[in-house]
Amino acid sequence: MIVDIITKKKEGKILSRQELEYFFNGYLNGEIEDYQMSSLLMAICLKGMADKEIFELTDIYIKSGEILDFSKVEGVKVDKHSTGGVGDKTTLIIAPIVASLGIPVVKMSGRGLGFTGGTIDKIESIEGFQTNRSMGAIKEQVKEIGISLSSQTSKLAPMDKKIYALRDVTGTVESIPLIAASIMSKKIASGADKILIDIKVGKGALIKNQKDAKKLKDLMTRIGNHYGREVRCIISDMNMPLGSCIGNALEVLEAIDILKGKEKGDLLNLCMDLASEMVSMSKNIGKKKAVKLVKEAIVSKKAYYKFLELVKYQNGDISSLKVSDKKIEVKSSKSGVVKSINALKFGELSVRLGAGRQHEDDKVNHEVGIKLNKLVGDKVKVGDTLCTLFVKKEDDFSKIEAYYTLA
Amino acid sequence: MIVDIITKKKEGKILSRQELEYFFNGYLNGEIEDYQMSSLLMAICLKGMADKEIFELTDIYIKSGEILDFSKVEGVKVDKHSTGGVGDKTTLIIAPIVASLGIPVVKMSGRGLGFTGGTIDKIESIEGFQTNRSMGAIKEQVKEIGISLSSQTSKLAPMDKKIYALRDVTGTVESIPLIAASIMSKKIASGADKILIDIKVGKGALIKNQKDAKKLKDLMTRIGNHYGREVRCIISDMNMPLGSCIGNALEVLEAIDILKGKEKGDLLNLCMDLASEMVSMSKNIGKKKAVKLVKEAIVSKKAYYKFLELVKYQNGDISSLKVSDKKIEVKSSKSGVVKSINALKFGELSVRLGAGRQHEDDKVNHEVGIKLNKLVGDKVKVGDTLCTLFVKKEDDFSKIEAYYTLA
Repeated sequence: MIVDIITKKKEGKILSRQELEYFFNGYLNGEIEDYQMSSLLMAICLKGMADKEIFELTDIYIKSGEILDFSKVEGVKVDKHSTGGVGDKTTLIIAPIVASLGIPVVKMSGRGLGFTGGTIDKIESIEGFQTNRSMGAIKEQVKEIGISLSSQTSKLAPMDKKIYALRDVTGTVESIPLIAASIMSKKIASGADKILIDIKVGKGALIKNQKDAKKLKDLMTRIGNHYGREVRCIISDMNMPLGSCIGNALEVLEAIDILKGKEKGDLLNLCMDLASEMVSMSKNIGKKKAVKLVKEAIVSKKAYYKFLELVKYQNGDISSLKVSDKKIEVKSSKSGVVKSINALKFGELSVRLGAGRQHEDDKVNHEVGIKLNKLVGDKVKVGDTLCTLFVKKEDDFSKIEAYYTLA
Repeated sequence: MIVDIITKKKEGKILSRQELEYFFNGYLNGEIEDYQMSSLLMAICLKGMADKEIFELTDIYIKSGEILDFSKVEGVKVDKHSTGGVGDKTTLIIAPIVASLGIPVVKMSGRGLGFTGGTIDKIESIEGFQTNRSMGAIKEQVKEIGISLSSQTSKLAPMDKKIYALRDVTGTVESIPLIAASIMSKKIASGADKILIDIKVGKGALIKNQKDAKKLKDLMTRIGNHYGREVRCIISDMNMPLGSCIGNALEVLEAIDILKGKEKGDLLNLCMDLASEMVSMSKNIGKKKAVKLVKEAIVSKKAYYKFLELVKYQNGDISSLKVSDKKIEVKSSKSGVVKSINALKFGELSVRLGAGRQHEDDKVNHEVGIKLNKLVGDKVKVGDTLCTLFVKKEDDFSKIEAYYTLA
């Protein structure tokens, strides 16, 4: 039976609900071995899945755990998810913007793994900030201040968690059906009415090209519709890091600068875009109107004060934010104009510095990271500082200049 | 590194010698996990391997164990391998034929698993027959009587053994490159000068169609040539069982009848073909001349006496052969002409009766099995016996008539 199911997928055939349940539930309860699941996952990566199978798999993921119910919280709940990138601190910016406009924000985020960071690691740079919160406390908080940011409960789609850990070590992460089922199961189980997905494309992302991004977008939209949820997707570039900071405290400080209206550039543009989509979806208004509201939220500092309110409510001490004193400046040996910055390399570097984790149980250091002094399009002279590393210990940093390509 | 190699094959790229060694040797010594190997194996099944990779993999398999040396045994050693089928007792027939013609036969065989039987299980139907023999004893025996039949040492290509066990439970058995590397590594490590392969094709075989059989034939020939060994392949039908008996003692008795010149039909024809190829390869003579020699060996009973000599030398008591007294006759409820007999179903039935094994450590019963009273092309009247089951215990045998298709 087990081998028959693997063989069926190997031959590119469609698995039935019954077969998927037998295999995936069997894996969760230990009847099916890791080596059988990884074989099936590779067959899925290479042979794909029909929509019918993907809907069933998403459903099996959802039903493996709790389904949250925020129906008692007033307003249309819009959740946003990013497929993961380097320097992506958008949640820290758009959640307070949206909440400051009266839209309830119940945000559950994850931790970083590999070269991509996680919002929970970042916010924990603020001393005292509690991320592990009960459902009761979250509901109470949203009623009181309209926003909550907590770590994703492990009771949400636990099957996805177990399978993701296996995919991570068996070369089966990059599969559009598996990525879609993984994301959508968690979003649907977390009780969102409408869902906005930021699909990252490029060297520093899971999705490497526009064609696959488009496929993933269409598939997630179909899954959402299958569950009666409106889904919108934004496809955004992840060839270079987002904004100019990578690392936990550094990214929170950069987010604060954006909320204070101090920073411009690609990060602000993406945040404006995402926040307006969320506002447009939640309030059921046009994008233009939504953009106007978002701008006002920043200019009036309403969004910034909402962020401070959130931090205080969850026991965070905003004055505790700090980065390492030990700085290393990476100088340019050439002159020219910055043509590209390798997001993947900088993401891996941030892990090496201690800002990210290689294994799930590694601890992260909040004070280390990278500030990009030169961004794409900037002019560079010999001897200019390309980027600054905030480190805790000495290491060989001689190859970092090559992460920049000058033209 | 591990995930990078899996991903490279997933993308259909060619793995280097270094990458294959790292992965496969790492698996044998426990550094790479089952679930990572099965993921790579599925990627190989679906993306294939270039010749260069297959040669390297075969070589890595060979070097994982001992390489036998029969260079001191005079004459050209020809080994024969079958890809496995139902009722295949050809080794028991052709080994004595070839040996009786003065060609040294050092035969090492395996045990059955699943619906295919194994020569060692069959010969052990003869009480006392010793199959577990040292290399010294084998060489001595071949020098004295020109023939030896023993179980394959586990020191031969142990990596193939470990990987085959994993393939068996992960739906990754059916892969032409993996089948070829598995067979050829064992044949080359066992010291054969020339190699004859009987590729079984059909419902009761691993290879289901002529196209794949041709691919496997060409690939094994190229691997052999890479090692300077002559390889010939015969593609033979395995849609219906070979001969008329399935089961250990039953098959030995059928082999004896062939050697005595008592039986005709598909089994005799295939044995004539295989034996003549071996004689032709070893003596470097044309096929016609070889056929003549083989016929003489049977007619003169030289081959039969060689078989008896082999049994006696390895301590077997030929008079001990017996089949179960408890017989069940399967009658036909229809009349017509036998159009086909389902080899796979009869193979599975023989396992159910106890003649084969489901798991590697199961014991087989030598006395049970099936005699096909009607073969393809035979006329059948209502009430005729289609086949006779030799059983040890009662069971539900009501569905067996359907394994026959009448026209």
